[in-house]
Amino acid sequence: METLDRLKRLVEARLDRDLPVDSRAVENILIALTKTDDFWAAVRASRELYLVVAKAIEVFADEGLVSIDDRRIVLTESGRAIISGLGVGSTRYRCEACEGKGIVVPKDAVYDEFMKIVGSRPSAVQQYDQGYIRPYDTLARLAFIDKNGDLEGRSIVILGDDDLLSLAALISGKPRRIAVFEIDSRLVDFIGAEAKKRGGEIEIYQHDLRKPLPDAVLGRFDTFVTDPSETLGGLKMFIGRGISALRGPRCAGYFGLTRVEASLKKWSAVQRMIVDEFGCVITDAIEEFHEYVNWDYLERMTGWTYAPVKAHPTVHWYTSTLFRIETVEGFKGLEDEIEEEIYLDDEAASV
Amino acid sequence: METLDRLKRLVEARLDRDLPVDSRAVENILIALTKTDDFWAAVRASRELYLVVAKAIEVFADEGLVSIDDRRIVLTESGRAIISGLGVGSTRYRCEACEGKGIVVPKDAVYDEFMKIVGSRPSAVQQYDQGYIRPYDTLARLAFIDKNGDLEGRSIVILGDDDLLSLAALISGKPRRIAVFEIDSRLVDFIGAEAKKRGGEIEIYQHDLRKPLPDAVLGRFDTFVTDPSETLGGLKMFIGRGISALRGPRCAGYFGLTRVEASLKKWSAVQRMIVDEFGCVITDAIEEFHEYVNWDYLERMTGWTYAPVKAHPTVHWYTSTLFRIETVEGFKGLEDEIEEEIYLDDEAASV
Repeated sequence: METLDRLKRLVEARLDRDLPVDSRAVENILIALTKTDDFWAAVRASRELYLVVAKAIEVFADEGLVSIDDRRIVLTESGRAIISGLGVGSTRYRCEACEGKGIVVPKDAVYDEFMKIVGSRPSAVQQYDQGYIRPYDTLARLAFIDKNGDLEGRSIVILGDDDLLSLAALISGKPRRIAVFEIDSRLVDFIGAEAKKRGGEIEIYQHDLRKPLPDAVLGRFDTFVTDPSETLGGLKMFIGRGISALRGPRCAGYFGLTRVEASLKKWSAVQRMIVDEFGCVITDAIEEFHEYVNWDYLERMTGWTYAPVKAHPTVHWYTSTLFRIETVEGFKGLEDEIEEEIYLDDEAASV
Repeated sequence: METLDRLKRLVEARLDRDLPVDSRAVENILIALTKTDDFWAAVRASRELYLVVAKAIEVFADEGLVSIDDRRIVLTESGRAIISGLGVGSTRYRCEACEGKGIVVPKDAVYDEFMKIVGSRPSAVQQYDQGYIRPYDTLARLAFIDKNGDLEGRSIVILGDDDLLSLAALISGKPRRIAVFEIDSRLVDFIGAEAKKRGGEIEIYQHDLRKPLPDAVLGRFDTFVTDPSETLGGLKMFIGRGISALRGPRCAGYFGLTRVEASLKKWSAVQRMIVDEFGCVITDAIEEFHEYVNWDYLERMTGWTYAPVKAHPTVHWYTSTLFRIETVEGFKGLEDEIEEEIYLDDEAASV
């Protein structure tokens, strides 16, 4: 315990930002290092903030608990002794058939068609914090929405469509109405062209979500989907706009939230916003539902300078939890213009 | 839409209790009846309150939307026409390998040993709202706790142990300390005897949780687990007592919550309690993680008189969502004595 507290203070002292660190975080990072010698995989396994994991590993190296060569982070004997003294650990029980999602996507015509589309998609750009999830995960998210009765015969609005969910929804033939709000003209054009090729209808609005949704959309939808930027301002903006598009109680919203760039302190603030301010309820939260495709601009992201090992990831290290929320009587979305910074805060690493 | 609203009003008029009904609930029950002709399976598939499903089916029968024979509830042509007019539906994508849990329990020595123990367990009694989950699900819950690093080397407290999680935890050999609070002397004796047989240590307190936890336990544990009675008073009591046993920020709590006896309105009240009053954060919520073993006192439960078909269930119809919460800085449990009714409210059906 004393060792953990000392390590926690050393990590805190090394951070040039205001980030929550606690002894459980130190412990979680140590446990992660018993499972992998890869920095990126350790970030994922620890479930702790990227920037904290990076600095903790530097501290562990200084303290002789790990040795770092150009690619690997290896626990030393004294590192192993500390963990074994604590007696803690975790075991993996993940279902390989569904990768822990609980649902399986059928390999049908929709699957084949969507895989064709994503082959020619625009790449992610840093300006809009645009890392996107694996195509399979987009289809899994769609299946999850469908399972809950929030797709078939429903009107669905997508706020930020880097994942191309609108096209997957269109191909499925299930929604009654599909609308997309997207700031990036490349994606607007791509989605528009692909929809047109298929003779399908997607309403696409090139729109900066800092501004309210247009009246034609407010309060008209059954379901929203979004993948927020993870500053508090960004989370409020994406989720709040989504809620403002819903037409009454018992409508559903879906969004992803990471541990990589959002501390549990931030999760707690978001959840207070959702249940109190927005008057919604959380029905599902499934960890690691989404794995992000490694993006091109890794070396230009804030977190790169923090990385204790300057090697590119060989695994999908950036994952997020899928949340489903439902509106209850008296719910309320975000209809005002907002001024908050939405891409950057102390916990941000990927922008 | 008008049809749904009319049906919703008819269901409301027929209820002799104050229960939330909305058109989405009516829709969800109709969709469930496209998937099964069994009343109990429809309760499960609809995800709506037992009592609302029961009364809605009576209304559907009066309106000629379903026909009921002694065992089956079958949609009529006019029932099918309404659903097809709405265009709504849902599809099943559940992973059969893990039954939607995302994790798989290894069939190892712990598994075999636990299955032996449950063969001689006391049956559930109505007095304590004691329906328990399938033994596999107890082991799955333990695996889920272990996966999150909340079992190995941790101190764990179980509030109400109808599921015999304490014995599964003991056999696993992983926790540093196990404590159980249980009101039923039969379970206290059973757990004590089985632990003793194995030379294992479980601290067992026969205790009414309306009273605060003893000082020796307050603020001393890493992890709590409980399966609350689903009145608001019961939820507050079980979860609040669990939190009061935790020793600091970043400790974890696990509990189940159903849709059968808890409306989303109640879910929303519970979540406000968790994030605001108790200062915790929700990290996971996995639907249908637990299936309950059908209990003996079905015909004596409140809901039986409501059942539109007086046939015993042939499926596991009663399921719950597994929630994981984590304490954050400034969290606060429940340390006062409480007077609230914990077993009965308008939504209760199983007691």
